[in-house]
Amino acid sequence: MAPIYFTPGPAQLYPTVAQHLQAGLDKQVFSQSHRSQAFKDLYRRTDAALRALFNLPEEYAIYFTGSATEIWERSLQNLTAQNSFHLVNGSFSKKYLDHAKWLGRQTEVLQVPFGEGFDIDHFQILEGTELVGLAQNETSSGVCMPVQDIHALRTLFPDPLLSVDIVSGAPYAALDFSKVDMAFFSVQKGFGLPAGLGVWLVNERCRRKATQLEGQQYTGGHYSIKSLHEQFLQFQTPCTPNVLDIYLLCHIVEDMLAAGIDTIRRQTESKAIQLYNFLEESNLFKPFVQNPLHRSPTVVVADVVDRPAAQVISKLKEQGLVVGSGYGNYKETQIRIANFPAVSEADVDQLVKALRQL
Amino acid sequence: MAPIYFTPGPAQLYPTVAQHLQAGLDKQVFSQSHRSQAFKDLYRRTDAALRALFNLPEEYAIYFTGSATEIWERSLQNLTAQNSFHLVNGSFSKKYLDHAKWLGRQTEVLQVPFGEGFDIDHFQILEGTELVGLAQNETSSGVCMPVQDIHALRTLFPDPLLSVDIVSGAPYAALDFSKVDMAFFSVQKGFGLPAGLGVWLVNERCRRKATQLEGQQYTGGHYSIKSLHEQFLQFQTPCTPNVLDIYLLCHIVEDMLAAGIDTIRRQTESKAIQLYNFLEESNLFKPFVQNPLHRSPTVVVADVVDRPAAQVISKLKEQGLVVGSGYGNYKETQIRIANFPAVSEADVDQLVKALRQL
Repeated sequence: MAPIYFTPGPAQLYPTVAQHLQAGLDKQVFSQSHRSQAFKDLYRRTDAALRALFNLPEEYAIYFTGSATEIWERSLQNLTAQNSFHLVNGSFSKKYLDHAKWLGRQTEVLQVPFGEGFDIDHFQILEGTELVGLAQNETSSGVCMPVQDIHALRTLFPDPLLSVDIVSGAPYAALDFSKVDMAFFSVQKGFGLPAGLGVWLVNERCRRKATQLEGQQYTGGHYSIKSLHEQFLQFQTPCTPNVLDIYLLCHIVEDMLAAGIDTIRRQTESKAIQLYNFLEESNLFKPFVQNPLHRSPTVVVADVVDRPAAQVISKLKEQGLVVGSGYGNYKETQIRIANFPAVSEADVDQLVKALRQL
Repeated sequence: MAPIYFTPGPAQLYPTVAQHLQAGLDKQVFSQSHRSQAFKDLYRRTDAALRALFNLPEEYAIYFTGSATEIWERSLQNLTAQNSFHLVNGSFSKKYLDHAKWLGRQTEVLQVPFGEGFDIDHFQILEGTELVGLAQNETSSGVCMPVQDIHALRTLFPDPLLSVDIVSGAPYAALDFSKVDMAFFSVQKGFGLPAGLGVWLVNERCRRKATQLEGQQYTGGHYSIKSLHEQFLQFQTPCTPNVLDIYLLCHIVEDMLAAGIDTIRRQTESKAIQLYNFLEESNLFKPFVQNPLHRSPTVVVADVVDRPAAQVISKLKEQGLVVGSGYGNYKETQIRIANFPAVSEADVDQLVKALRQL
């Protein structure tokens, strides 16, 4: 049996990836010009599928970049002139903040300890804040921000643009896109695709701000919102994109739509409950995130109680079950289990059984 | 028979791509963490193969980006504070210049008409120029700069950093990397891979300049030379890269080394001679580039004399031969024929035969 990857990205490939890749090779899709009608049709079809999956308001545009990392940079270059505010509760939300500092923005930060989430009733955002950056799901710590809390931010703070990192939460997170301004993800997590593509969902309000800033500061050249949007209007990209990943994304999202996004969300929750229930009752593991409301359904982080995490990882690997190590300083003491749509309920059953027998 | 793509990128896939892709899927390479030893080993092996192929001096580092377009931006952000000089003879060399302007650099330009090359004995580069950007092969016009001329620039102008776009010339162009400072390409042209990966070859002199500028200006955050190099020293990347393309690049370069780079270069020249000889004697076509020394062996551009280029393209397509259209304003009157390693001598025979019968 081939190993099953419960790693938080790159991750288990979605079960239909191999067949779509073969079909793409057979049709020579990856030799077609990115200026051809065939590519425009592919972009249009991917756009339609993503809109359906995310229930995306019509005003949103969908751009492709090389990575989600790039979108941290491009969003700050295009949507802020002076400042940004960051909710930091792990390594990835902190990297968004770092990027703002590198770009010379004045930054305000609300930081909570690793493993904790935010209490939205107990913080303020300064008047004049241009953009609020937050991670709906912190891949490093396994903390999620409930979408209701994200939606509430719009009511509490209607002025700043709300930029949501859904890198390891999509497509599970049922975000109401009318209550945020942009979101972004990479495809090697919840979509179960090979890495190398970032997807940026951008509303009209962001584009108006980008238009104001255009000409007043450097906005990323070919990767400015201006340039991306001009190209998007013709289902084109400023430079040759990762057509292979766009092709796979199109087909995997269509497969997800066929399975039903509600079904995928229910399965994700049911698998997550199974994993957290096991962690709660285990003597060897504990759920790292204390507040059940902030426990990520898609990236489950566990403290390993009485032995090195590496030993657990290695034992599981012998059985063909690959889980992720803890992030950074938590490498020795934690494991991370990705619960993305590509891992089935049977896969999670098998993992829990193996964890129980350690 | 599957169509043969003579398009200048995305292009015909290298013949062994499908088998390597299948092997990568079978080994679940695209699920492995980019922080794993397996990925480090892959990067190390790709690095070794590229060094052998390009006869790269040891001092060079090899970084991965999302595209060659991104390298225009990152090279200017990291290697120039004030100014750059650009040799412009087509759309892609002009885009490098555009990027310098967007970044607010003072730019000097030597521009020649579309379809012409440069006479290196008849221009000057101002003292104090930080970087000279040039395209060894202009994909838009089919003009190449002989590598001897590029090498001579170093003797004529020893001070500025020499940045060479080898996007559609690599791996054919036998550049002496000790006579330039950096070069870059994307993999969907001469390497015959799916698009989505840029490769940046950077010497010590560039890194010293980047170190001087670091902290004094914005250098690209995660994609600064500082960040890329720190990661490179451990065969790591700042963020999740296009592992699929890196894996394919590794194997295709090893295949090219097995075939012999000298053999590939000789075959490229022999196929190019066949194509240009045909264009010279044809009544329907003329070589667009007048000076034989500046005719690109890898992207052959032809004027179509007495009918719309679209008609020629369409007739060839019916026979399973896909050639590129002319670039931009030349769409109606030219065709472009990519002569990359992925198209065989038999493929070129078949194309010339079909062209002759039009």
